[in-house]
Amino acid sequence: MIELAFSILASDFAHLADEVAAAERGGGTIVHVDVMDGHFVPNITFGPPMVKALRPVTKLPLDCHLMVENPDAFIPAFAEAGADMLSVQQEVCRHLHRTLQLIEQHGMLPGVVINPGTPVDTLIEVLPMVHYVLVMSVNPGFGGQKFLPLALEKIAYLAELREEMGLNFRIEVDGGVAHDTVGSVVEAGADMLVAGSAIFSPGRTEQNAQEFLKTARAAASDEK
Amino acid sequence: MIELAFSILASDFAHLADEVAAAERGGGTIVHVDVMDGHFVPNITFGPPMVKALRPVTKLPLDCHLMVENPDAFIPAFAEAGADMLSVQQEVCRHLHRTLQLIEQHGMLPGVVINPGTPVDTLIEVLPMVHYVLVMSVNPGFGGQKFLPLALEKIAYLAELREEMGLNFRIEVDGGVAHDTVGSVVEAGADMLVAGSAIFSPGRTEQNAQEFLKTARAAASDEK
Amino acid sequence: MIELAFSILASDFAHLADEVAAAERGGGTIVHVDVMDGHFVPNITFGPPMVKALRPVTKLPLDCHLMVENPDAFIPAFAEAGADMLSVQQEVCRHLHRTLQLIEQHGMLPGVVINPGTPVDTLIEVLPMVHYVLVMSVNPGFGGQKFLPLALEKIAYLAELREEMGLNFRIEVDGGVAHDTVGSVVEAGADMLVAGSAIFSPGRTEQNAQEFLKTARAAASDEK
Amino acid sequence: MIELAFSILASDFAHLADEVAAAERGGGTIVHVDVMDGHFVPNITFGPPMVKALRPVTKLPLDCHLMVENPDAFIPAFAEAGADMLSVQQEVCRHLHRTLQLIEQHGMLPGVVINPGTPVDTLIEVLPMVHYVLVMSVNPGFGGQKFLPLALEKIAYLAELREEMGLNFRIEVDGGVAHDTVGSVVEAGADMLVAGSAIFSPGRTEQNAQEFLKTARAAASDEK
Amino acid sequence: MIELAFSILASDFAHLADEVAAAERGGGTIVHVDVMDGHFVPNITFGPPMVKALRPVTKLPLDCHLMVENPDAFIPAFAEAGADMLSVQQEVCRHLHRTLQLIEQHGMLPGVVINPGTPVDTLIEVLPMVHYVLVMSVNPGFGGQKFLPLALEKIAYLAELREEMGLNFRIEVDGGVAHDTVGSVVEAGADMLVAGSAIFSPGRTEQNAQEFLKTARAAASDEK
Amino acid sequence: MIELAFSILASDFAHLADEVAAAERGGGTIVHVDVMDGHFVPNITFGPPMVKALRPVTKLPLDCHLMVENPDAFIPAFAEAGADMLSVQQEVCRHLHRTLQLIEQHGMLPGVVINPGTPVDTLIEVLPMVHYVLVMSVNPGFGGQKFLPLALEKIAYLAELREEMGLNFRIEVDGGVAHDTVGSVVEAGADMLVAGSAIFSPGRTEQNAQEFLKTARAAASDEK
Repeated sequence: MIELAFSILASDFAHLADEVAAAERGGGTIVHVDVMDGHFVPNITFGPPMVKALRPVTKLPLDCHLMVENPDAFIPAFAEAGADMLSVQQEVCRHLHRTLQLIEQHGMLPGVVINPGTPVDTLIEVLPMVHYVLVMSVNPGFGGQKFLPLALEKIAYLAELREEMGLNFRIEVDGGVAHDTVGSVVEAGADMLVAGSAIFSPGRTEQNAQEFLKTARAAASDEK
Repeated sequence: MIELAFSILASDFAHLADEVAAAERGGGTIVHVDVMDGHFVPNITFGPPMVKALRPVTKLPLDCHLMVENPDAFIPAFAEAGADMLSVQQEVCRHLHRTLQLIEQHGMLPGVVINPGTPVDTLIEVLPMVHYVLVMSVNPGFGGQKFLPLALEKIAYLAELREEMGLNFRIEVDGGVAHDTVGSVVEAGADMLVAGSAIFSPGRTEQNAQEFLKTARAAASDEK
Repeated sequence: MIELAFSILASDFAHLADEVAAAERGGGTIVHVDVMDGHFVPNITFGPPMVKALRPVTKLPLDCHLMVENPDAFIPAFAEAGADMLSVQQEVCRHLHRTLQLIEQHGMLPGVVINPGTPVDTLIEVLPMVHYVLVMSVNPGFGGQKFLPLALEKIAYLAELREEMGLNFRIEVDGGVAHDTVGSVVEAGADMLVAGSAIFSPGRTEQNAQEFLKTARAAASDEK
Repeated sequence: MIELAFSILASDFAHLADEVAAAERGGGTIVHVDVMDGHFVPNITFGPPMVKALRPVTKLPLDCHLMVENPDAFIPAFAEAGADMLSVQQEVCRHLHRTLQLIEQHGMLPGVVINPGTPVDTLIEVLPMVHYVLVMSVNPGFGGQKFLPLALEKIAYLAELREEMGLNFRIEVDGGVAHDTVGSVVEAGADMLVAGSAIFSPGRTEQNAQEFLKTARAAASDEK
Repeated sequence: MIELAFSILASDFAHLADEVAAAERGGGTIVHVDVMDGHFVPNITFGPPMVKALRPVTKLPLDCHLMVENPDAFIPAFAEAGADMLSVQQEVCRHLHRTLQLIEQHGMLPGVVINPGTPVDTLIEVLPMVHYVLVMSVNPGFGGQKFLPLALEKIAYLAELREEMGLNFRIEVDGGVAHDTVGSVVEAGADMLVAGSAIFSPGRTEQNAQEFLKTARAAASDEK
Repeated sequence: MIELAFSILASDFAHLADEVAAAERGGGTIVHVDVMDGHFVPNITFGPPMVKALRPVTKLPLDCHLMVENPDAFIPAFAEAGADMLSVQQEVCRHLHRTLQLIEQHGMLPGVVINPGTPVDTLIEVLPMVHYVLVMSVNPGFGGQKFLPLALEKIAYLAELREEMGLNFRIEVDGGVAHDTVGSVVEAGADMLVAGSAIFSPGRTEQNAQEFLKTARAAASDEK
């Protein structure tokens, strides 16, 4: 099932409840929260207090992507704040298996993320334990980047591994996913599509989300 | 002049524009933004994107308190996002003079912050260049703490040094400042009063702010 | 040859000489020392001074597993203290080849360790230079974990690589290895079996060790 | 009251229970545990598991000196293991007040330690909340050093501050305290004397402790 | 085309202009600059100011190998100082794709370097975007090492991948490349040969370079 | 005695031997080497290899200022390379007393440096053991800064403490010291004057040095 995970980082924080409602009306089914600590990536966005603020305004699952250096330290706080899904970067996790276990023990669905330069094979030992893999199609935390086509091959390779290994993790993609790229992303095998600036736009958020999903689902049908 | 710097960390982020407006109507004249990176303190709150979101909803000065390990890296981003005042922790700044210079060069008013355990004397070389000193009256980034009376002596000592050295920096205080403590804080010499949970409360924010300021100003009059 | 490496971390440190003697009488032939620095893993156990204290009470080889962030800094101290075998974690060694060289230059047998989430393929360039590979079957430094079956595939893969590449490193396994799991571990190809709580028990250490080895060796015979 | 805190780092770990018993018979009333993490100082000694092993063999208070970079992370583990007193280095604590609070909240007596190069004045804000100040009279974690006389002035200054401020923290001293130096240390005002190699010696530990205390107490009487 | 990249680290810095001129007369066509920060490797050599000093004395391309922990921070400075080629270590780059992009955006040719213990497969996602791959044939930053034959297999494997993937990156090799080893290195497929102590020698630099290149080119001809 | 320590960072590295000779002819009596590691300060300059290159071209003492995060690690290498004086920053030395001891044990004269924002009082415990104190009159490692007058008060205070404590350390000053500022610096009490861009200039280095020293010495005479 193709889902739109709308990234609130691209919304207007001053009116967050309204922004979320609009994206939800447009068909978005996952709230994507980009957590940045200013160390793993050169920006600070938000953390557990933001998740806590989002929790009462929507029933949708909150999907938090931790772009932080020491994710283990924050797992309990995100769980308590109301996160449903939590993903961590392969590049910072020396005890990746343990970190994913910890997410699960705190009642959240564990995900793992790889940067554009990181090979899929680094994940081979943890694929059986994740609920989803997030393939970055831009470099996280750096603004103004275009969709990187190398993500398509990674998505396809992950879909292949999933079948070979008899697993059923989902494939999420984030970075430059918009009307012009979402088709190829879906065709490659992704089913959780993160979109931010492609969706949020004053007065057009709902419609943007609808059109985005329409394009994505059309590609999904073609593929079958 | 006694001012209320209301801390948005205690507000409801889902309706930030409304929250700020209420505190402003209640007499708050500074928006206080607690930036935490999950490294200097064990919480991640928000960073430049939040400042950017606040900028269009208020004309009040945005006072950002950087509880981060590497403040220099974020100074340009806060300036660009619209911050007016920026304060950094003495404990993390190996090049404290330089950091304060950099804040000023980016068009913001520089402030310096000291933790409860940090002596005022560590600031002696930079007092002439700061616009304000923020005395923490709880330990930053850790929840559920009460106002520490040791802050009062620090405030008084700073007021003394200010006079002795012929300077005119302002004295801000943050942590557990509420109706029961604000009087002594003002009497000790503070004039920028950070308050969060003492102010924000559904339906009562405006009134809370008014009462807080009334108490604070009464103490200030008594003092004279 | 199947060997029992008994982990003193599970013993009673207040009577270490006696504990070692009991495990030795039970057939243990390697003393396994779990060195943790509180940085790579969230516990601090012991370091070179402990190795120095063990040296006079046994003639068995001392096998030190460095769960530390900067192993190079400690290699000389462990050599001097009397360590015979020294293993380091792949995840922290940016100069892994150099670190293994350094261990050898200090007269110890070099080993390399991989966490549960770390693929075997990360070791491909250093396999020819190690005396042993330690496959973690739990996440190091975190208590109360069960044996992870994914270790079995890694052991088998390492045994395969060893044959293909014409090498003769040994395969050690650590974490949840006990009576119920040791058989499958041996069948997969491991020959240095680390056991701690499965062995040390007041008044039963010797017997535990004997039974553990009996089970392990039975599995080894079956395999042939 | 003059007390001998005997440092087990200088004892024979292979027979720890016996070593502690001997020092206790000789009049030692505090067990001093030097915790080193290989980061703050270039040695790794031991951590919570060692405290847990000591707990059943003595009723004396266990006084743990944390020579580690991130003491907060270990406070709960030391409390659980049975530590009674816990001291932290001023040089690593950015939130020194908070760290000392945390120690107290975990039911242990908080202490603060200063290196030879660190001025006493850095402690001015936390003196009212500590149970003891540990003055290092050698540089921690580096072997083979002689007692530094600069410690005497620090001890005297602390004793002075204690009186001036109406406080009653104790003054501990560690490093090169032996028969030839203990007199001046006591005269300067210290009352918790850490001794290691001056005490532990095969077959002479009990007697060494007795003689050490005798010298120390003689100096204390002279002083009055 | 086989090229000699002469490493100025082996030259006499007190007469750098002369040293460069001699190597250039001997046929060297690339100036190789070993940048070390004392963190990634245990030596500090030089940085952007050295590149700036070299720029006016030669027209040859300046090829800077960053053996530093945070290469991104230095990319603009090297570009400004006049570097033409910039390579970074795979082991330190969590955002490797981004770092290489950044080098290119600053007008330099991007390269990536792997240590002896690092597998070639870690580079698979970035091979399409690099101008060259530098295979270390000794461990960087540590003196007195001999050429490691494992580099030959890596070079050959890279040459293979290059063909398979239809790419045209160059293959550079550094560490112990001298008259006795350069032949095999060239045969394996390397075409940028870094040499330092094999070249610089008072009064013989020009001739050394000529002979080195002659041997290298002979091997290249044989190979065809 | 007033001395000129000429900073080679401002010279032309491509012709270093000539540059040093010119400054020496102009009356410079100390070669000042600014070592930067790109971590403590945002530039990488040079390290031990540069000192080694300077050693044969001058008999003057080599005075190395370590602007690095982990000075202890480099002390042996600087001693071996031929450094005569070595200074370290107070801000990075958690074991400052030990670091200064280590410098002395390696046969060099130990110095300590303070940044503009760092109070003189932080040095109180180590003043008796240093050969010189370096007062930074700009922030180290950042270009294009003007002399900070706050340095004058620090120099004067140090001179006062020196007399009070009966010590004889020298006072060095670095940053923006030129013809217009050197007089006040000398009057305040400094006697080792670091100058770089004020001295090195194609064809005028010798003369610049002479004039600089003349101005400095005139101020020194006036003062008496």
